[in-house]
Amino acid sequence: MTDEQYMRQALQEAQQAYDTGEVPVGAIVVMQNRIIGRGHNQVELLTDSTAHAEIIALTAAFNYLGAKYLPEATLYVTVEPCLMCAGALHWSKISRIVWGTDDEKNGHRKHTGSHNPFHPKTTLTSGILGNECAALMKDFFKARR
Amino acid sequence: MTDEQYMRQALQEAQQAYDTGEVPVGAIVVMQNRIIGRGHNQVELLTDSTAHAEIIALTAAFNYLGAKYLPEATLYVTVEPCLMCAGALHWSKISRIVWGTDDEKNGHRKHTGSHNPFHPKTTLTSGILGNECAALMKDFFKARR
Repeated sequence: MTDEQYMRQALQEAQQAYDTGEVPVGAIVVMQNRIIGRGHNQVELLTDSTAHAEIIALTAAFNYLGAKYLPEATLYVTVEPCLMCAGALHWSKISRIVWGTDDEKNGHRKHTGSHNPFHPKTTLTSGILGNECAALMKDFFKARR
Repeated sequence: MTDEQYMRQALQEAQQAYDTGEVPVGAIVVMQNRIIGRGHNQVELLTDSTAHAEIIALTAAFNYLGAKYLPEATLYVTVEPCLMCAGALHWSKISRIVWGTDDEKNGHRKHTGSHNPFHPKTTLTSGILGNECAALMKDFFKARR
């Protein structure tokens, strides 16, 4: 499957968040062409401001593999990871991170600047289905104002 | 209770981690002189490289209160929070963070430099029982070499 196809899976997760009144971010973890973890924001459901899509997808992948590191996996997430999620991805030693749209307000780069917080071997790709990922966020916040 | 007394509670958590072969970091969350969350590293037990003391203590506090923010709480942790935990503490809007010993290798300041990643209202204190917190870490890693 292509990056776009996997990002569409992450977008499905984001849509589930949207449909339940959560900030619409979705994530999946892929290893050897298999989805081994999925997640979407559940901050409201769990009354936990740290229940982000990436954290939930990572935890699912750790549990699935019974492993504490994911050196052969890729995380797809619809929105640029925040500082917490960047830190979690660092610890996971994940091979690759692909995000859809940048997040100027809460993206990790606001805090880390030009410093790369990820594992040195982790590669980054951004802008996959970026417009669709951004549109879902914009719709959500527009509807709330 | 004083900062030292609360940090001793966090050290008890760290000792539990030590005794089960986990990197000895412990944390507690305090609100109105009550401990509302406790945690210690469970990376090995949960095979999850993100199962840090602070995350577990925060989740416990969110669950206890049924609230997604902790604006009246203080987190005590034996070691300087990493980038992930700093991000989680940012989202929690916690009032105050107290840590024991600095962590030059994995502390959040390695990644954020002079930029403060926490909520603007969050106050920071460090060095409470710092020597004891550091000694537990040193013993742990010495025994593993």
